[in-house]
Amino acid sequence: MTDEATAFVPGHLTGFFSAHPDADPSAAGSRGAGVTLSHGVDVRVERGGHGGHPALVTLNGDPVAIDAVAGVRDALDATDAAVTAETPLPLGAGFGVSGALALGAAYGINAAYERRRGENDLVSIAHCAEVEAGTGLGDVVAQARGGLPIRLDPGDPDHGRLDGIPAAPRVEYVTFGSVSTEAVLSGDTTRLTAAGERALADLRGEPTPSRLVELSRRFAREADLLTDRVADAIGSVREGGDDATMAMLGDTVFGFGTALSDAGYDPEACGVHPAGATLRARDGGSRHTRAGDDE
Amino acid sequence: MTDEATAFVPGHLTGFFSAHPDADPSAAGSRGAGVTLSHGVDVRVERGGHGGHPALVTLNGDPVAIDAVAGVRDALDATDAAVTAETPLPLGAGFGVSGALALGAAYGINAAYERRRGENDLVSIAHCAEVEAGTGLGDVVAQARGGLPIRLDPGDPDHGRLDGIPAAPRVEYVTFGSVSTEAVLSGDTTRLTAAGERALADLRGEPTPSRLVELSRRFAREADLLTDRVADAIGSVREGGDDATMAMLGDTVFGFGTALSDAGYDPEACGVHPAGATLRARDGGSRHTRAGDDE
Repeated sequence: MTDEATAFVPGHLTGFFSAHPDADPSAAGSRGAGVTLSHGVDVRVERGGHGGHPALVTLNGDPVAIDAVAGVRDALDATDAAVTAETPLPLGAGFGVSGALALGAAYGINAAYERRRGENDLVSIAHCAEVEAGTGLGDVVAQARGGLPIRLDPGDPDHGRLDGIPAAPRVEYVTFGSVSTEAVLSGDTTRLTAAGERALADLRGEPTPSRLVELSRRFAREADLLTDRVADAIGSVREGGDDATMAMLGDTVFGFGTALSDAGYDPEACGVHPAGATLRARDGGSRHTRAGDDE
Repeated sequence: MTDEATAFVPGHLTGFFSAHPDADPSAAGSRGAGVTLSHGVDVRVERGGHGGHPALVTLNGDPVAIDAVAGVRDALDATDAAVTAETPLPLGAGFGVSGALALGAAYGINAAYERRRGENDLVSIAHCAEVEAGTGLGDVVAQARGGLPIRLDPGDPDHGRLDGIPAAPRVEYVTFGSVSTEAVLSGDTTRLTAAGERALADLRGEPTPSRLVELSRRFAREADLLTDRVADAIGSVREGGDDATMAMLGDTVFGFGTALSDAGYDPEACGVHPAGATLRARDGGSRHTRAGDDE
Protein backbone atom coordinates (compact mmCIF):
# COMPACT_ATOMS: atom_id res chain seq x y z
CA MET A 1 0.00 0.00 0.00
CA THR A 2 1.21 3.48 -0.84
CA ASP A 3 1.41 5.82 2.15
CA GLU A 4 3.06 8.67 0.29
CA ALA A 5 2.48 10.44 -2.99
CA THR A 6 4.02 13.33 -4.91
CA ALA A 7 2.18 15.80 -7.14
CA PHE A 8 3.64 18.37 -9.50
CA VAL A 9 1.75 21.67 -9.80
CA PRO A 10 2.83 24.29 -12.37
CA GLY A 11 3.50 27.86 -11.31
CA HIS A 12 0.97 30.43 -12.54
CA LEU A 13 1.58 34.02 -13.58
CA THR A 14 -1.67 35.99 -13.65
CA GLY A 15 -1.64 38.71 -16.31
CA PHE A 16 -4.93 40.38 -15.41
CA PHE A 17 -7.98 39.59 -13.30
CA SER A 18 -11.26 40.81 -11.87
CA ALA A 19 -12.27 39.95 -8.31
CA HIS A 20 -15.64 38.28 -7.59
CA PRO A 21 -16.21 37.74 -3.87
CA ASP A 22 -19.03 35.46 -2.75
CA ALA A 23 -20.17 34.13 0.62
CA ASP A 24 -19.79 30.64 -0.88
CA PRO A 25 -16.06 30.09 -1.50
CA SER A 26 -16.77 27.59 -4.29
CA ALA A 27 -18.54 30.37 -6.21
CA ALA A 28 -16.04 33.09 -5.27
CA GLY A 29 -12.97 33.70 -7.36
CA SER A 30 -11.66 35.71 -10.23
CA ARG A 31 -11.92 36.02 -13.96
CA GLY A 32 -8.77 36.64 -15.93
CA ALA A 33 -5.91 35.11 -17.84
CA GLY A 34 -2.35 34.03 -17.29
CA VAL A 35 0.44 31.60 -17.97
CA THR A 36 1.16 28.25 -16.30
CA LEU A 37 4.85 27.47 -16.06
CA SER A 38 7.01 24.38 -16.45
CA HIS A 39 8.65 25.77 -13.29
CA GLY A 40 6.39 24.61 -10.51
CA VAL A 41 6.12 22.98 -7.13
CA ASP A 42 6.73 19.32 -6.25
CA VAL A 43 4.50 18.53 -3.29
CA ARG A 44 5.13 15.31 -1.38
CA VAL A 45 2.58 14.02 1.11
CA GLU A 46 3.38 11.38 3.71
CA ARG A 47 0.64 9.76 5.69
CA GLY A 48 0.97 10.45 9.41
CA GLY A 49 3.70 12.12 11.38
CA HIS A 50 2.53 15.73 11.19
CA GLY A 51 1.66 17.02 14.61
CA GLY A 52 2.36 20.75 14.34
CA HIS A 53 0.23 23.70 13.29
CA PRO A 54 -2.25 22.64 10.59
CA ALA A 55 -0.87 25.26 8.16
CA LEU A 56 2.77 24.18 8.43
CA VAL A 57 4.60 22.75 5.45
CA THR A 58 8.29 22.30 4.70
CA LEU A 59 9.18 24.45 1.68
CA ASN A 60 12.70 24.05 0.27
CA GLY A 61 13.75 22.74 3.67
CA ASP A 62 12.21 25.51 5.78
CA PRO A 63 8.99 25.43 7.80
CA VAL A 64 6.40 27.91 6.46
CA ALA A 65 2.74 28.46 7.34
CA ILE A 66 0.36 28.28 4.36
CA ASP A 67 -3.21 28.78 5.57
CA ALA A 68 -4.68 27.19 2.43
CA VAL A 69 -2.91 23.92 3.25
CA ALA A 70 -4.60 23.84 6.66
CA GLY A 71 -7.94 24.06 4.86
CA VAL A 72 -7.04 21.17 2.55
CA ARG A 73 -5.82 18.95 5.40
CA ASP A 74 -9.07 19.65 7.20
CA ALA A 75 -11.38 19.07 4.21
CA LEU A 76 -9.75 15.72 3.44
CA ASP A 77 -9.63 14.64 7.09
CA ALA A 78 -5.86 14.31 7.05
CA THR A 79 -4.61 16.68 9.72
CA ASP A 80 -1.59 14.41 10.29
CA ALA A 81 -0.43 14.59 6.65
CA ALA A 82 3.22 15.68 6.38
CA VAL A 83 3.65 18.04 3.39
CA THR A 84 7.12 18.66 1.98
CA ALA A 85 7.59 20.84 -1.10
CA GLU A 86 10.43 21.85 -3.41
CA THR A 87 10.28 24.69 -5.90
CA PRO A 88 12.56 27.09 -7.78
CA LEU A 89 9.79 29.72 -7.58
CA PRO A 90 9.73 32.48 -4.93
CA LEU A 91 6.83 32.70 -2.46
CA GLY A 92 4.71 35.88 -2.49
CA ALA A 93 6.00 37.11 -5.84
CA GLY A 94 3.01 36.28 -8.04
CA PHE A 95 3.75 32.68 -9.06
CA GLY A 96 0.83 31.01 -7.32
CA VAL A 97 3.04 29.06 -4.92
CA SER A 98 0.41 29.03 -2.16
CA GLY A 99 -2.19 27.77 -4.65
CA ALA A 100 0.24 25.11 -5.84
CA LEU A 101 0.87 23.95 -2.27
CA ALA A 102 -2.87 23.69 -1.61
CA LEU A 103 -3.59 21.85 -4.86
CA GLY A 104 -0.56 19.57 -4.56
CA ALA A 105 -1.51 18.74 -0.97
CA ALA A 106 -5.03 17.83 -2.13
CA TYR A 107 -3.75 15.49 -4.88
CA GLY A 108 -1.11 14.00 -2.59
CA ILE A 109 -3.46 13.42 0.34
CA ASN A 110 -6.08 11.88 -1.96
CA ALA A 111 -3.51 9.31 -3.16
CA ALA A 112 -1.68 8.68 0.12
CA TYR A 113 -4.88 8.41 2.18
CA GLU A 114 -6.92 6.65 -0.56
CA ARG A 115 -9.67 9.22 -0.38
CA ARG A 116 -10.96 8.25 -3.87
CA ARG A 117 -12.03 11.76 -4.82
CA GLY A 118 -12.23 12.91 -8.44
CA GLU A 119 -10.09 15.72 -9.84
CA ASN A 120 -12.89 18.31 -9.76
CA ASP A 121 -13.46 17.62 -6.05
CA LEU A 122 -9.77 18.03 -5.28
CA VAL A 123 -9.56 21.27 -7.25
CA SER A 124 -12.66 22.58 -5.47
CA ILE A 125 -11.21 21.76 -2.05
CA ALA A 126 -7.94 23.56 -2.83
CA HIS A 127 -9.74 26.52 -4.44
CA CYS A 128 -12.04 26.99 -1.43
CA ALA A 129 -9.11 26.72 0.99
CA GLU A 130 -7.16 29.36 -0.95
CA VAL A 131 -10.17 31.72 -1.16
CA GLU A 132 -10.88 31.33 2.57
CA ALA A 133 -7.22 32.01 3.38
CA GLY A 134 -7.43 35.19 1.30
CA THR A 135 -4.22 34.33 -0.56
CA GLY A 136 -5.63 33.87 -4.05
CA LEU A 137 -8.76 33.76 -6.18
CA GLY A 138 -7.93 32.08 -9.47
CA ASP A 139 -4.54 30.38 -9.29
CA VAL A 140 -5.82 26.96 -8.26
CA VAL A 141 -8.26 26.46 -11.15
CA ALA A 142 -5.63 27.75 -13.60
CA GLN A 143 -2.98 25.43 -12.14
CA ALA A 144 -5.37 22.49 -12.45
CA ARG A 145 -5.74 23.20 -16.18
CA GLY A 146 -2.28 24.10 -17.49
CA GLY A 147 -1.44 25.93 -20.71
CA LEU A 148 -2.37 29.61 -21.03
CA PRO A 149 -5.65 29.57 -19.07
CA ILE A 150 -8.47 32.03 -19.59
CA ARG A 151 -10.82 32.01 -16.61
CA LEU A 152 -14.24 32.88 -18.08
CA ASP A 153 -16.13 32.64 -14.77
CA PRO A 154 -15.06 32.79 -11.14
CA GLY A 155 -15.20 29.74 -8.91
CA ASP A 156 -14.38 26.07 -8.67
CA PRO A 157 -14.91 23.53 -11.49
CA ASP A 158 -18.65 23.35 -10.81
CA HIS A 159 -18.96 27.11 -11.30
CA GLY A 160 -16.20 28.35 -13.54
CA ARG A 161 -15.72 27.67 -17.23
CA LEU A 162 -12.21 27.89 -18.63
CA ASP A 163 -10.76 28.46 -22.07
CA GLY A 164 -7.15 28.66 -23.23
CA ILE A 165 -4.82 30.30 -25.72
CA PRO A 166 -3.55 27.63 -28.14
CA ALA A 167 0.20 28.34 -28.01
CA ALA A 168 3.32 27.30 -26.10
CA PRO A 169 5.77 30.22 -26.02
CA ARG A 170 9.02 30.35 -24.04
CA VAL A 171 8.58 32.42 -20.86
CA GLU A 172 11.10 34.76 -19.22
CA TYR A 173 10.67 36.37 -15.81
CA VAL A 174 12.58 38.49 -13.28
CA THR A 175 11.48 38.89 -9.66
CA PHE A 176 12.35 42.01 -7.68
CA GLY A 177 10.35 41.19 -4.55
CA SER A 178 6.94 40.60 -3.00
CA VAL A 179 3.54 42.27 -3.15
CA SER A 180 0.90 41.29 -0.58
CA THR A 181 -2.01 39.59 -2.33
CA GLU A 182 -4.05 39.82 0.87
CA ALA A 183 -3.55 43.61 1.06
CA VAL A 184 -4.71 44.19 -2.52
CA LEU A 185 -7.65 41.77 -2.37
CA SER A 186 -8.90 43.14 0.94
CA GLY A 187 -8.91 46.73 -0.38
CA ASP A 188 -11.31 48.38 -2.85
CA THR A 189 -11.17 46.27 -6.01
CA THR A 190 -13.77 48.21 -8.04
CA ARG A 191 -11.32 49.88 -10.40
CA LEU A 192 -9.20 46.75 -10.72
CA THR A 193 -12.23 44.64 -11.55
CA ALA A 194 -13.50 47.05 -14.20
CA ALA A 195 -10.05 47.02 -15.87
CA GLY A 196 -9.91 43.22 -15.64
CA GLU A 197 -13.32 42.79 -17.26
CA ARG A 198 -12.28 45.03 -20.16
CA ALA A 199 -9.09 43.04 -20.66
CA LEU A 200 -10.98 39.73 -20.64
CA ALA A 201 -13.51 40.91 -23.22
CA ASP A 202 -10.70 42.10 -25.49
CA LEU A 203 -8.63 38.91 -25.08
CA ARG A 204 -11.60 36.73 -26.02
CA GLY A 205 -11.73 38.56 -29.34
CA GLU A 206 -8.09 37.67 -30.05
CA PRO A 207 -6.73 34.95 -27.77
CA THR A 208 -2.99 35.08 -28.63
CA PRO A 209 0.11 35.30 -26.40
CA SER A 210 1.09 38.78 -27.62
CA ARG A 211 -2.40 40.12 -27.00
CA LEU A 212 -2.33 38.60 -23.49
CA VAL A 213 0.83 40.56 -22.66
CA GLU A 214 -0.49 43.77 -24.20
CA LEU A 215 -3.84 43.62 -22.37
CA SER A 216 -2.15 42.63 -19.11
CA ARG A 217 0.14 45.65 -19.35
CA ARG A 218 -2.88 47.91 -19.94
CA PHE A 219 -4.61 46.30 -16.95
CA ALA A 220 -1.61 46.85 -14.65
CA ARG A 221 -1.57 50.54 -15.55
CA GLU A 222 -5.36 51.03 -15.31
CA ALA A 223 -5.55 49.18 -11.97
CA ASP A 224 -2.61 51.24 -10.68
CA LEU A 225 -0.70 48.16 -9.61
CA LEU A 226 2.61 48.69 -11.44
CA THR A 227 5.65 48.78 -9.18
CA ASP A 228 8.49 51.14 -10.10
CA ARG A 229 10.91 48.36 -10.90
CA VAL A 230 8.41 46.49 -13.07
CA ALA A 231 7.49 49.73 -14.87
CA ASP A 232 11.19 50.38 -15.57
CA ALA A 233 11.69 46.86 -16.89
CA ILE A 234 8.63 47.07 -19.14
CA GLY A 235 9.93 50.40 -20.46
CA SER A 236 13.30 48.86 -21.33
CA VAL A 237 11.68 45.88 -23.08
CA ARG A 238 9.35 48.11 -25.10
CA GLU A 239 12.22 50.37 -26.19
CA GLY A 240 13.62 47.30 -27.91
CA GLY A 241 10.32 46.71 -29.72
CA ASP A 242 9.16 43.76 -27.61
CA ASP A 243 6.63 43.61 -24.78
CA ALA A 244 6.39 42.53 -21.13
CA THR A 245 4.01 42.88 -18.20
CA MET A 246 3.65 42.40 -14.45
CA ALA A 247 2.72 39.24 -12.52
CA MET A 248 -0.44 39.70 -10.42
CA LEU A 249 0.44 40.00 -7.60
CA GLY A 250 4.18 40.25 -7.22
CA ASP A 251 7.06 42.58 -7.95
CA THR A 252 7.75 40.41 -11.00
CA VAL A 253 8.01 41.20 -14.70
CA PHE A 254 7.47 38.56 -17.41
CA GLY A 255 7.41 38.28 -21.17
CA PHE A 256 7.57 35.70 -23.96
CA GLY A 257 10.45 34.55 -26.11
CA THR A 258 13.58 36.57 -25.34
CA ALA A 259 11.79 39.77 -24.33
CA LEU A 260 13.73 40.30 -21.09
CA SER A 261 17.13 38.92 -22.07
CA ASP A 262 17.12 41.08 -25.21
CA ALA A 263 16.59 44.10 -22.93
CA GLY A 264 19.72 43.27 -20.92
CA TYR A 265 18.12 41.43 -18.00
CA ASP A 266 19.28 38.04 -16.75
CA PRO A 267 15.88 36.36 -16.47
CA GLU A 268 14.80 32.93 -15.40
CA ALA A 269 13.42 31.07 -18.42
CA CYS A 270 10.99 28.17 -18.73
CA GLY A 271 8.17 26.89 -20.91
CA VAL A 272 4.40 26.96 -20.70
CA HIS A 273 3.31 23.81 -18.86
CA PRO A 274 0.98 21.87 -21.16
CA ALA A 275 -0.82 20.07 -18.32
CA GLY A 276 -2.39 20.92 -15.01
CA ALA A 277 -1.49 19.40 -11.66
CA THR A 278 -0.55 15.74 -11.94
CA LEU A 279 0.42 12.94 -9.63
CA ARG A 280 3.94 11.71 -10.28
CA ALA A 281 3.61 8.47 -12.24
CA ARG A 282 5.20 6.26 -9.58
CA ASP A 283 2.25 6.79 -7.28
CA GLY A 284 -0.42 6.58 -9.93
CA GLY A 285 1.27 3.57 -11.46
CA SER A 286 1.20 1.65 -8.25
CA ARG A 287 -2.50 2.21 -7.76
CA HIS A 288 -3.67 -0.25 -10.40
CA THR A 289 -2.41 -3.16 -8.37
CA ARG A 290 -4.91 -2.61 -5.61
CA ALA A 291 -8.54 -2.78 -6.31
CA GLY A 292 -10.46 -5.15 -8.41
CA ASP A 293 -13.24 -6.08 -6.02
CA ASP A 294 -15.01 -8.48 -8.30
CA GLU A 295 -18.42 -7.81 -9.74
CA MET B 1 5.79 34.36 -40.48
CA THR B 2 4.95 30.77 -39.67
CA ASP B 3 3.09 28.96 -42.45
CA GLU B 4 3.21 25.56 -40.82
CA ALA B 5 2.49 24.19 -37.37
CA THR B 6 2.51 20.81 -35.65
CA ALA B 7 0.16 19.66 -32.91
CA PHE B 8 0.39 16.55 -30.75
CA VAL B 9 -2.88 14.89 -29.80
CA PRO B 10 -2.93 11.95 -27.36
CA GLY B 11 -4.66 8.71 -28.30
CA HIS B 12 -7.85 7.94 -26.34
CA LEU B 13 -9.16 4.56 -25.22
CA THR B 14 -12.84 4.77 -24.28
CA GLY B 15 -13.75 2.35 -21.50
CA PHE B 16 -17.52 2.89 -21.51
CA PHE B 17 -19.96 5.41 -22.93
CA SER B 18 -23.58 6.37 -23.49
CA ALA B 19 -24.70 7.91 -26.79
CA HIS B 20 -26.59 11.22 -26.84
CA PRO B 21 -27.57 12.26 -30.36
CA ASP B 22 -28.77 15.80 -30.97
CA ALA B 23 -29.67 17.78 -34.08
CA ASP B 24 -27.07 20.33 -32.96
CA PRO B 25 -23.67 18.62 -33.24
CA SER B 26 -22.19 20.87 -30.55
CA ALA B 27 -24.73 19.45 -28.08
CA ALA B 28 -24.49 15.88 -29.38
CA GLY B 29 -21.91 13.50 -28.00
CA SER B 30 -21.38 10.90 -25.35
CA ARG B 31 -20.90 10.53 -21.65
CA GLY B 32 -18.32 8.10 -20.40
CA ALA B 33 -14.75 7.60 -19.30
CA GLY B 34 -11.46 6.51 -20.72
CA VAL B 35 -7.71 6.88 -20.87
CA THR B 36 -5.62 9.34 -22.89
CA LEU B 37 -2.30 7.93 -24.01
CA SER B 38 1.25 9.22 -24.34
CA HIS B 39 1.05 7.38 -27.67
CA GLY B 40 -0.72 9.81 -29.94
CA VAL B 41 -0.75 11.54 -33.29
CA ASP B 42 1.60 14.26 -34.53
CA VAL B 43 -0.40 16.38 -36.96
CA ARG B 44 1.49 18.80 -39.20
CA VAL B 45 -0.36 21.48 -41.14
CA GLU B 46 1.17 23.38 -44.02
CA ARG B 47 -0.54 26.40 -45.43
CA GLY B 48 -1.49 25.93 -49.09
CA GLY B 49 -0.72 23.14 -51.49
CA HIS B 50 -3.64 20.82 -50.79
CA GLY B 51 -5.83 20.47 -53.86
CA GLY B 52 -7.31 17.01 -53.47
CA HIS B 53 -10.45 15.73 -51.76
CA PRO B 54 -11.20 17.80 -48.65
CA ALA B 55 -11.04 14.70 -46.41
CA LEU B 56 -7.60 13.54 -47.58
CA VAL B 57 -4.67 13.48 -45.18
CA THR B 58 -1.32 11.71 -45.33
CA LEU B 59 -1.14 9.24 -42.43
CA ASN B 60 2.19 7.46 -41.88
CA GLY B 61 3.00 8.19 -45.52
CA ASP B 62 -0.26 6.94 -47.03
CA PRO B 63 -3.23 8.96 -48.27
CA VAL B 64 -6.38 8.29 -46.23
CA ALA B 65 -9.80 9.98 -46.21
CA ILE B 66 -10.93 11.25 -42.77
CA ASP B 67 -14.30 12.94 -43.11
CA ALA B 68 -13.86 14.86 -39.85
CA VAL B 69 -10.79 16.60 -41.27
CA ALA B 70 -12.86 17.86 -44.20
CA GLY B 71 -15.23 19.44 -41.70
CA VAL B 72 -12.37 21.14 -39.85
CA ARG B 73 -10.78 22.48 -43.05
CA ASP B 74 -14.15 23.87 -44.04
CA ALA B 75 -14.99 25.44 -40.64
CA LEU B 76 -11.64 27.22 -40.49
CA ASP B 77 -11.76 28.30 -44.15
CA ALA B 78 -8.57 26.45 -44.96
CA THR B 79 -9.51 23.96 -47.69
CA ASP B 80 -5.98 24.18 -49.08
CA ALA B 81 -4.33 23.10 -45.79
CA ALA B 82 -1.99 20.14 -46.28
CA VAL B 83 -2.32 17.74 -43.32
CA THR B 84 0.42 15.17 -42.66
CA ALA B 85 0.26 12.89 -39.63
CA GLU B 86 2.45 10.29 -37.97
CA THR B 87 1.28 7.86 -35.30
CA PRO B 88 2.17 4.48 -33.82
CA LEU B 89 -1.56 3.89 -33.20
CA PRO B 90 -3.76 1.84 -35.56
CA LEU B 91 -6.75 3.47 -37.30
CA GLY B 92 -10.21 2.06 -36.57
CA ALA B 93 -9.15 0.06 -33.52
CA GLY B 94 -10.56 2.30 -30.76
CA PHE B 95 -7.69 4.75 -30.20
CA GLY B 96 -9.47 7.92 -31.35
CA VAL B 97 -7.14 8.43 -34.31
CA SER B 98 -9.83 10.14 -36.40
CA GLY B 99 -10.62 12.48 -33.50
CA ALA B 100 -6.91 13.20 -33.07
CA LEU B 101 -6.58 14.05 -36.76
CA ALA B 102 -9.56 16.42 -36.57
CA LEU B 103 -8.35 18.11 -33.38
CA GLY B 104 -4.72 18.30 -34.52
CA ALA B 105 -5.81 19.77 -37.85
CA ALA B 106 -7.84 22.43 -35.99
CA TYR B 107 -4.88 23.43 -33.78
CA GLY B 108 -2.45 23.33 -36.69
CA ILE B 109 -4.66 25.34 -39.05
CA ASN B 110 -5.33 27.92 -36.35
CA ALA B 111 -1.59 28.49 -35.94
CA ALA B 112 -0.50 28.22 -39.58
CA TYR B 113 -3.35 30.40 -40.88
CA GLU B 114 -3.36 32.78 -37.88
CA ARG B 115 -7.06 32.24 -37.25
CA ARG B 116 -6.74 33.51 -33.65
CA ARG B 117 -9.34 31.16 -32.21
CA GLY B 118 -9.34 30.07 -28.57
CA GLU B 119 -8.93 26.46 -27.50
CA ASN B 120 -12.63 25.92 -26.78
CA ASP B 121 -13.52 27.08 -30.30
CA LEU B 122 -11.00 24.71 -31.84
CA VAL B 123 -12.22 21.79 -29.75
CA SER B 124 -15.81 22.59 -30.69
CA ILE B 125 -14.98 22.68 -34.39
CA ALA B 126 -13.23 19.31 -34.25
CA HIS B 127 -15.97 17.78 -32.07
CA CYS B 128 -18.73 18.90 -34.44
CA ALA B 129 -16.79 17.64 -37.48
CA GLU B 130 -16.31 14.24 -35.84
CA VAL B 131 -19.98 13.98 -34.80
CA GLU B 132 -21.16 14.96 -38.29
CA ALA B 133 -18.81 12.42 -39.86
CA GLY B 134 -20.31 9.75 -37.54
CA THR B 135 -16.87 8.51 -36.53
CA GLY B 136 -16.94 9.44 -32.84
CA LEU B 137 -18.90 11.14 -30.08
CA GLY B 138 -16.55 11.83 -27.21
CA ASP B 139 -12.94 11.31 -28.26
CA VAL B 140 -12.24 14.92 -29.21
CA VAL B 141 -13.23 16.50 -25.88
CA ALA B 142 -11.32 13.79 -24.01
CA GLN B 143 -8.24 14.30 -26.19
CA ALA B 144 -8.40 18.04 -25.56
CA ARG B 145 -8.27 17.40 -21.80
CA GLY B 146 -5.74 14.63 -21.24
CA GLY B 147 -5.40 12.43 -18.17
CA LEU B 148 -8.13 9.88 -17.39
CA PRO B 149 -11.15 11.90 -18.56
CA ILE B 150 -14.67 11.44 -17.24
CA ARG B 151 -17.20 13.00 -19.60
CA LEU B 152 -20.06 14.11 -17.35
CA ASP B 153 -22.16 15.62 -20.14
CA PRO B 154 -22.23 15.16 -23.90
CA GLY B 155 -21.12 17.89 -26.25
CA ASP B 156 -18.44 20.47 -26.95
CA PRO B 157 -16.78 22.65 -24.26
CA ASP B 158 -19.81 24.96 -24.09
CA HIS B 159 -22.05 22.01 -23.26
CA GLY B 160 -20.05 19.26 -21.63
CA ARG B 161 -18.47 19.31 -18.20
CA LEU B 162 -15.50 17.03 -17.62
CA ASP B 163 -13.90 15.50 -14.57
CA GLY B 164 -10.88 13.22 -14.24
CA ILE B 165 -9.40 10.37 -12.24
CA PRO B 166 -6.33 11.67 -10.37
CA ALA B 167 -3.81 8.98 -11.30
CA ALA B 168 -1.17 8.21 -13.91
CA PRO B 169 -0.88 4.45 -14.34
CA ARG B 170 1.17 2.64 -16.99
CA VAL B 171 -1.05 1.41 -19.84
CA GLU B 172 -0.74 -1.82 -21.83
CA TYR B 173 -2.77 -2.67 -24.94
CA VAL B 174 -3.02 -5.31 -27.67
CA THR B 175 -4.93 -4.75 -30.91
CA PHE B 176 -6.45 -7.65 -32.81
CA GLY B 177 -8.29 -5.61 -35.46
CA SER B 178 -11.02 -3.11 -36.24
CA VAL B 179 -14.62 -2.56 -35.21
CA SER B 180 -16.74 -0.08 -37.18
CA THR B 181 -17.69 2.84 -34.94
CA GLU B 182 -20.16 4.03 -37.56
CA ALA B 183 -21.96 0.64 -37.60
CA VAL B 184 -22.40 0.57 -33.82
CA LEU B 185 -23.38 4.23 -33.47
CA SER B 186 -25.89 4.06 -36.33
CA GLY B 187 -27.62 1.03 -34.77
CA ASP B 188 -29.92 0.84 -31.73
CA THR B 189 -27.91 2.26 -28.84
CA THR B 190 -30.62 1.98 -26.14
CA ARG B 191 -29.08 -0.95 -24.29
CA LEU B 192 -25.56 0.39 -24.67
CA THR B 193 -26.59 3.79 -23.32
CA ALA B 194 -28.35 2.33 -20.28
CA ALA B 195 -25.23 0.30 -19.46
CA GLY B 196 -23.02 3.34 -19.97
CA GLU B 197 -25.11 5.51 -17.66
CA ARG B 198 -24.90 2.88 -14.92
CA ALA B 199 -21.13 2.67 -15.29
CA LEU B 200 -20.77 6.45 -15.11
CA ALA B 201 -22.86 6.74 -11.95
CA ASP B 202 -20.79 4.01 -10.29
CA LEU B 203 -17.44 5.48 -11.40
CA ARG B 204 -18.35 8.88 -9.95
CA GLY B 205 -18.74 7.22 -6.58
CA GLU B 206 -15.19 5.85 -6.77
CA PRO B 207 -13.07 7.48 -9.48
CA THR B 208 -10.00 5.20 -9.49
CA PRO B 209 -8.16 3.43 -12.34
CA SER B 210 -9.08 -0.07 -11.12
CA ARG B 211 -12.75 0.84 -10.86
CA LEU B 212 -12.61 2.29 -14.39
CA VAL B 213 -11.40 -1.05 -15.76
CA GLU B 214 -13.90 -3.06 -13.75
CA LEU B 215 -16.89 -0.90 -14.77
CA SER B 216 -15.75 -0.81 -18.39
CA ARG B 217 -15.59 -4.58 -18.48
CA ARG B 218 -19.12 -4.80 -17.06
CA PHE B 219 -20.26 -2.27 -19.70
CA ALA B 220 -18.70 -4.26 -22.56
CA ARG B 221 -20.56 -7.37 -21.45
CA GLU B 222 -23.90 -5.64 -20.79
CA ALA B 223 -23.74 -3.74 -24.10
CA ASP B 224 -22.89 -7.01 -25.88
CA LEU B 225 -19.86 -5.48 -27.58
CA LEU B 226 -17.13 -7.93 -26.52
CA THR B 227 -15.29 -9.56 -29.40
CA ASP B 228 -14.15 -13.16 -28.99
CA ARG B 229 -10.48 -12.29 -28.95
CA VAL B 230 -10.91 -9.52 -26.39
CA ALA B 231 -13.07 -11.79 -24.21
CA ASP B 232 -10.33 -14.46 -24.33
CA ALA B 233 -7.65 -11.95 -23.39
CA ILE B 234 -9.69 -10.55 -20.50
CA GLY B 235 -10.24 -14.12 -19.28
CA SER B 236 -6.49 -14.81 -19.31
CA VAL B 237 -5.71 -11.60 -17.43
CA ARG B 238 -8.34 -12.26 -14.80
CA GLU B 239 -7.11 -15.82 -14.25
CA GLY B 240 -3.87 -14.19 -13.09
CA GLY B 241 -5.76 -11.97 -10.63
CA ASP B 242 -5.49 -8.75 -12.62
CA ASP B 243 -8.04 -6.99 -14.80
CA ALA B 244 -8.45 -5.70 -18.36
CA THR B 245 -11.19 -4.43 -20.66
CA MET B 246 -12.06 -3.56 -24.27
CA ALA B 247 -11.45 -0.30 -26.13
CA MET B 248 -14.67 1.27 -27.43
CA LEU B 249 -14.78 0.74 -30.34
CA GLY B 250 -12.04 -1.55 -31.55
CA ASP B 251 -10.92 -5.16 -31.33
CA THR B 252 -8.46 -4.00 -28.68
CA VAL B 253 -7.86 -5.06 -25.08
CA PHE B 254 -6.19 -2.78 -22.51
CA GLY B 255 -5.23 -2.79 -18.86
CA PHE B 256 -3.02 -0.94 -16.38
CA GLY B 257 0.41 -1.78 -15.02
CA THR B 258 1.58 -5.15 -16.33
CA ALA B 259 -1.88 -6.72 -16.68
CA LEU B 260 -1.37 -8.00 -20.23
CA SER B 261 2.32 -8.85 -20.13
CA ASP B 262 1.80 -10.86 -16.93
CA ALA B 263 -0.83 -12.88 -18.81
CA GLY B 264 1.66 -13.80 -21.53
CA TYR B 265 0.77 -11.20 -24.15
CA ASP B 266 3.33 -8.96 -25.86
CA PRO B 267 1.52 -5.64 -25.46
CA GLU B 268 2.36 -2.12 -26.51
CA ALA B 269 2.99 -0.03 -23.39
CA CYS B 270 2.78 3.70 -22.75
CA GLY B 271 1.76 6.20 -20.09
CA VAL B 272 -1.33 8.27 -19.43
CA HIS B 273 -0.83 11.60 -21.19
CA PRO B 274 -1.07 14.34 -18.56
CA ALA B 275 -2.10 17.06 -21.05
CA GLY B 276 -4.58 17.49 -23.85
CA ALA B 277 -3.76 18.45 -27.41
CA THR B 278 -0.89 20.93 -27.62
CA LEU B 279 0.95 22.83 -30.29
CA ARG B 280 4.58 21.80 -30.53
CA ALA B 281 6.57 24.54 -28.79
CA ARG B 282 8.48 25.63 -31.90
CA ASP B 283 5.33 27.03 -33.45
CA GLY B 284 3.87 28.51 -30.31
CA GLY B 285 7.24 29.94 -29.40
CA SER B 286 7.56 31.75 -32.65
CA ARG B 287 4.21 33.42 -32.27
CA HIS B 288 5.28 35.93 -29.65
CA THR B 289 7.49 37.71 -32.12
CA ARG B 290 4.57 38.79 -34.24
CA ALA B 291 1.93 40.97 -32.87
CA GLY B 292 2.22 43.74 -30.39
CA ASP B 293 0.04 46.28 -32.13
CA ASP B 294 0.47 49.11 -29.71
CA GLU B 295 -2.32 50.37 -27.53
